[in-house]
Amino acid sequence: MRAVVQRVDGASVVVDGETVGAIDGEGLCVLVGVTHDDTKEKAAQLARKLWSVRILHDEKSCSDLDAPLLVISQFTLYGDARKGRRPTWNAAAPGDVAEPLVDEVVAQLRALGATVATGRFGAQMRVSLTNDGPFTVLVEV
Amino acid sequence: MRAVVQRVDGASVVVDGETVGAIDGEGLCVLVGVTHDDTKEKAAQLARKLWSVRILHDEKSCSDLDAPLLVISQFTLYGDARKGRRPTWNAAAPGDVAEPLVDEVVAQLRALGATVATGRFGAQMRVSLTNDGPFTVLVEV
Repeated sequence: MRAVVQRVDGASVVVDGETVGAIDGEGLCVLVGVTHDDTKEKAAQLARKLWSVRILHDEKSCSDLDAPLLVISQFTLYGDARKGRRPTWNAAAPGDVAEPLVDEVVAQLRALGATVATGRFGAQMRVSLTNDGPFTVLVEV
Repeated sequence: MRAVVQRVDGASVVVDGETVGAIDGEGLCVLVGVTHDDTKEKAAQLARKLWSVRILHDEKSCSDLDAPLLVISQFTLYGDARKGRRPTWNAAAPGDVAEPLVDEVVAQLRALGATVATGRFGAQMRVSLTNDGPFTVLVEV
């Protein structure tokens, strides 16, 4: 499982003109990619990392500040762009594998006490954010 | 060299309340990280990939559509968050190594004919964007 984690000052996700998820102020916008051998345990591991990693201002974490997270599925993170002009997507898990695991990340975060907003799996989404720093880390579990 | 490449519908970067770079409409917002053994040739390689990779709508590339790019330095992409709560930054090149190489990516893109906006290296920047899809790929050279 792989995540691009952006420290944001607000982020929101719109589907068909409707805002379906949003967070205000300092928090994390998390794009999550799932590969074929990912498991519920990996989803839980990613959730723990997202909740505790100290990448907010003053090296605080979401758990320190009760800062919110916007979690968005993003299969393209497993795209392979090394050869040619068109990335290949073989490493990305199919939707029926990925969706429950992205949901598990969200469920595990909420079980830890996090405030989590989400997009809509598989939908055409417009994710607007302000990356504050900027500060972006790649997390792989 | 490593990049997080987000397909955007507009992106801008603000430093001290002033917009120092912006792109409108469909394009790419590129966060670039530099490591110790990166070279000018790797910067040129990344530029060629960014210019030609077909991740815009209808599998078009920036070169196909003359779509703009916003290129922002982001050393944190070489952060290692695997252990503990605080990432380590050892793999990130120091600023005097990274800055000229990020500049080289921009120069090479412009030499290819790209319209490129940039931030201000090392400044506290607020990068606002709308990730349209969302569609995000990781590029490593």
